[in-house]
Amino acid sequence: MKASKSGEFALIDRIIAEINKVKPGEWNALVSGIGDDAALIRTRSRYQVATTDCLVEDVHFKKSFLDWNALGWKALAINLSDIAAMGGTPNYALVSLAIPLNTEVEDVLRLYRGMLEAARESGTIIAGGNISRASEIAVHTTVIGEVPARGKALLRSKAKKGDLIAVTGRLGAAAGGLRTLAGSLHAARIDAEALEKAFWYPQPRIDVGRILVKNGIRCGMDVSDGLVADLGHILEMSRAGARIEAARIPVHPSVAVLGFEGLDLALTGGEDYELLFTGKKEAIEKVAAEACCPITIIGEVTRGAGKLEVVGSDGKLIPVENGGWHHF
Amino acid sequence: MKASKSGEFALIDRIIAEINKVKPGEWNALVSGIGDDAALIRTRSRYQVATTDCLVEDVHFKKSFLDWNALGWKALAINLSDIAAMGGTPNYALVSLAIPLNTEVEDVLRLYRGMLEAARESGTIIAGGNISRASEIAVHTTVIGEVPARGKALLRSKAKKGDLIAVTGRLGAAAGGLRTLAGSLHAARIDAEALEKAFWYPQPRIDVGRILVKNGIRCGMDVSDGLVADLGHILEMSRAGARIEAARIPVHPSVAVLGFEGLDLALTGGEDYELLFTGKKEAIEKVAAEACCPITIIGEVTRGAGKLEVVGSDGKLIPVENGGWHHF
Repeated sequence: MKASKSGEFALIDRIIAEINKVKPGEWNALVSGIGDDAALIRTRSRYQVATTDCLVEDVHFKKSFLDWNALGWKALAINLSDIAAMGGTPNYALVSLAIPLNTEVEDVLRLYRGMLEAARESGTIIAGGNISRASEIAVHTTVIGEVPARGKALLRSKAKKGDLIAVTGRLGAAAGGLRTLAGSLHAARIDAEALEKAFWYPQPRIDVGRILVKNGIRCGMDVSDGLVADLGHILEMSRAGARIEAARIPVHPSVAVLGFEGLDLALTGGEDYELLFTGKKEAIEKVAAEACCPITIIGEVTRGAGKLEVVGSDGKLIPVENGGWHHF
Repeated sequence: MKASKSGEFALIDRIIAEINKVKPGEWNALVSGIGDDAALIRTRSRYQVATTDCLVEDVHFKKSFLDWNALGWKALAINLSDIAAMGGTPNYALVSLAIPLNTEVEDVLRLYRGMLEAARESGTIIAGGNISRASEIAVHTTVIGEVPARGKALLRSKAKKGDLIAVTGRLGAAAGGLRTLAGSLHAARIDAEALEKAFWYPQPRIDVGRILVKNGIRCGMDVSDGLVADLGHILEMSRAGARIEAARIPVHPSVAVLGFEGLDLALTGGEDYELLFTGKKEAIEKVAAEACCPITIIGEVTRGAGKLEVVGSDGKLIPVENGGWHHF
């Protein structure tokens, strides 16, 4: 049935029914959820971390390769990743959904099911939302989390000269997945599946974010625009420089097979939602021992304000100007 | 200059500059704002109220009568109204903006200026946001506020038989304004100005919301879908009925001149963002003495579950089925 035929309130009732299928976690934070003017939530900490991000048709995905369940997962996961990038714990999410009138109700429910999977895995409550018609699909999601204290957060401005630079997981797969879905990259079937999964189902590194803070790391962010662009944000806000080695970049195996193109995707592709952070060697080693994903040291923070050097395996600098994903 | 020519980061820098022009209030809640993965905020209370709402081109406004400053004001104000409708105090907002590439940078700044006016008047911090291109303009805004304690909130489910029903301010002007702007209602010039202002610049009743809670009122919401539809939400969630008198409805003078059409706008028009609440006569009288806007008793809560009767001045029932604003 189309959303237009179902009507707004009937559609909202079906969404609420999906949300109510998910059992609340141990921390019974939700005093009053969907159905009132605003959600009412009890928090543990007075220090909140809050972020919002959106996925818009024809900007972040094409209808030709849209997977509604995946869209729901990703819409929440990219916000959870921002909370992880602050070293925070997510508490609740608000979802503002815009859909064309001819959208199938079942597709909207698929979107919510995907989102609820990401919510359940991360202990996040879908506390409220809004639905409007629009000419294209857009999912605007806000996540509110918390950190235990003022100083217990990862900021972009805290990189210090001499810090090592490290990254979680493998890079380049999400951008490879987008290109595979859009038909501009032809990978072997097994790689294509891995790449498309990396594009649609990013894994927010919430546990690692907390491990970083626990071990005294104070500078971090997530890789959403691409490694080079995001490291640039850290350098700009920390008034520092960096030197990273191309040979150390943990290129995802499914794009590493592409050679230099794979390295380029890892450096500038974006949407990997891994954590990029800086800190002392000993702290990073402790993090690596605790984290359940690879932690790779890729370079170090230098004095040169804003200057980023990427050194190739031949010792020469690789030009990286204009790297990263721009929304315009 | 068009947004496409300015580029994403330059546009964000200009938006940040606008936001930084506004001095923070006494409560220095913002630890770290725009520029990091998430905003970091310190709150007073552990009980949060959180809401999200959007304004989308061709659904909530037409480009033909778009006023960017007003759009910014309204995008925030409608969310502030939801916080008011919980009896809460707004703390901070996150703004997810979607704009076509050919949008003028100056128009985006106008939008933010309008939003910042509403933020300043209500003591709300614009703590973060996101910007994306899209084929149509959409402003998705989230506001997080707080209430002092669990029971100190207005809920839709708390109406009790015998409660009187009251509403703040005057109704029908916002819907009259929309019709005037769209050209389907021709009002005298002086009325047209008042109506258009009511449509674009709703005044969130934050102070009244707090006065309600302070005086023991426990049931309230804001009038966004229209008086009949919204009272219907209260009745459904409170499993109660209501009987209201048409002659008591505080129809806005600029639509009251239209006779029955004015009453209809007040009953079903929506977007007035006044507060609708129920409580004991003595509590309402105390509220009326403290509030800086008119408080009008329009009827009472009855036993009949979900049943709403609107009694005309001739004593006969006025049919009100299918009243209110639907988004589909």
